[in-house]
Amino acid sequence: MKNKNQQTLSESFIINNYLKKLNFRKKESFNFENDGAYLNISQNNKIVVSNDTIVEGVDFFPIDNADSVAHKIICSNLSDISSMGATPYCFNLSLGLPKKISKKWLNFFSSKILKLQKKYKFFLLGGDIAQTKHIVISATFFGKLNNRRIIRRDGAKINNDIWLTGNLGNSFAGLMFKKNIIKANQSIKKFFIKKYLYPSPCMIGNKLGLIATSAIDISDGFYGDLDKLLLHKNLGANIDVESIPILPKLKNLIRLHKIKINKLLSSGDDYEILFTSNPKKRNFINALSKKNKINMTKVGTIINKKGIYTDGKILSLNKRSFQYNF
Amino acid sequence: MKNKNQQTLSESFIINNYLKKLNFRKKESFNFENDGAYLNISQNNKIVVSNDTIVEGVDFFPIDNADSVAHKIICSNLSDISSMGATPYCFNLSLGLPKKISKKWLNFFSSKILKLQKKYKFFLLGGDIAQTKHIVISATFFGKLNNRRIIRRDGAKINNDIWLTGNLGNSFAGLMFKKNIIKANQSIKKFFIKKYLYPSPCMIGNKLGLIATSAIDISDGFYGDLDKLLLHKNLGANIDVESIPILPKLKNLIRLHKIKINKLLSSGDDYEILFTSNPKKRNFINALSKKNKINMTKVGTIINKKGIYTDGKILSLNKRSFQYNF
Repeated sequence: MKNKNQQTLSESFIINNYLKKLNFRKKESFNFENDGAYLNISQNNKIVVSNDTIVEGVDFFPIDNADSVAHKIICSNLSDISSMGATPYCFNLSLGLPKKISKKWLNFFSSKILKLQKKYKFFLLGGDIAQTKHIVISATFFGKLNNRRIIRRDGAKINNDIWLTGNLGNSFAGLMFKKNIIKANQSIKKFFIKKYLYPSPCMIGNKLGLIATSAIDISDGFYGDLDKLLLHKNLGANIDVESIPILPKLKNLIRLHKIKINKLLSSGDDYEILFTSNPKKRNFINALSKKNKINMTKVGTIINKKGIYTDGKILSLNKRSFQYNF
Repeated sequence: MKNKNQQTLSESFIINNYLKKLNFRKKESFNFENDGAYLNISQNNKIVVSNDTIVEGVDFFPIDNADSVAHKIICSNLSDISSMGATPYCFNLSLGLPKKISKKWLNFFSSKILKLQKKYKFFLLGGDIAQTKHIVISATFFGKLNNRRIIRRDGAKINNDIWLTGNLGNSFAGLMFKKNIIKANQSIKKFFIKKYLYPSPCMIGNKLGLIATSAIDISDGFYGDLDKLLLHKNLGANIDVESIPILPKLKNLIRLHKIKINKLLSSGDDYEILFTSNPKKRNFINALSKKNKINMTKVGTIINKKGIYTDGKILSLNKRSFQYNF
């Protein structure tokens, strides 16, 4: 479903050929190679900025509930803020709405946002409403660093551990059920579709500064997002696929050949955090994981050789997902 | 063309009923009653934030050149930043593009932005690309205050002078020519259509702090925008219509009954600045106007009586334009 690359001109082509010249090489933009950017107000007061747009028929189904749409535009941005090591502050909302939009839709949409605002503590700063043919929602989020450093995509070092929060693949499995590509009993189906409609962002942003050398949120598939951590420095990764955290009921679907593990690891937006860390931090991370009740699992190691290796074999390019934000 | 109120549910209805509850009454949002908002980083380091979205077929014609589209999304935001007393810093861009978008379009679009970036000194911080059925472009702009105060909509005081920068109505006249509603010779037509396609924002932001008690940019018609300066305090305005700065060639079209003056003052986005000021500042404003080569014209006075009065008569509501940003 989330396939922005259908365009004749890919996102990366547009970014590299038309947009990169516009950042004037300012460090605040990270040359469009990070989950977001920052406003350089003062040395100790940087504000992290992320931006995400979702479109009816591309990023969600026209029949999806308004509260799922609200959940997605908010949580995809929260996830970016978190992966940069920041905590949510406020956001700007650009609402492109078709004429047919109903009071009921607006009520569900805004009520869900209110719930998330109370849960994650942020507020609506401002925005704009426009009339569009289909729903197009863009949000610009602001995060505070509270004197911590910004976590970037390009900080991984050789021999760093590779960690994942939470469990992978639930959102992708939900999408497969939603599209009727796979079948199972009603409760399993319901469970995963809920994970697809309401993925939960991992909000460990304010802890990342203590442990991570680099980080990214899983929004385009594990392999594709891992690749983005590697490409800056021509590093590689050894991945122990067996160790990747997957729920038993999803493992069961894999065992039954309903879902292929490589497909699952190349798709889906779970909004979990993938980060790299110095091996010296292992005990600290395990303690942090316990204390905050957030699963953190070591799934591999950064190596001094290009490519992603699983069981000693290099992963071929077409198994990865490629998606660039700028 | 710019008629976002076609929606069954008006912008103000959506804002008041569904969105206002989301600002948690934070002062940074101005309760969605200003041209923009601000990030309260520290007392002396506020960052002004504005947001504007333009849609193909609503805010511009599908056949309009890409450089006009670029001009509009940038200049409508620059104008908001300026009217709040700030200078441009950087911006985030959300590009909703249909599959059919061409390299030529992207080239014209990005080249125009680059030109404006060099002229007004700001850079692209980041953003997002999405696939849409028609072009939907949203930009979030950031402005710096350089230790000046934010100019708000609600600061006008009784007996304040009402000032306008530049000339009004050129963009509206251009729209009338573009839609073939009015006719004139080719050079007149070309002149005004250019003003419609490439309205020039009045970038006096960094001077406004020295002179203005309140300000707004003219993006929805003079009367409608003036009304937004008045409604907070139940104030009114005496307007000397004769003194409103209008180019001789536009005055000529009015004289020939091709354009009605009241229609012209209720429509159009010229991106000039409307501001109020203490009468003691008159000499200073006139000197500033000369020094910066920006026309500034006193067009009326704030009065202690609700309503907008022209030649002693109150203006009826339906002659004003109503458009609310939040």
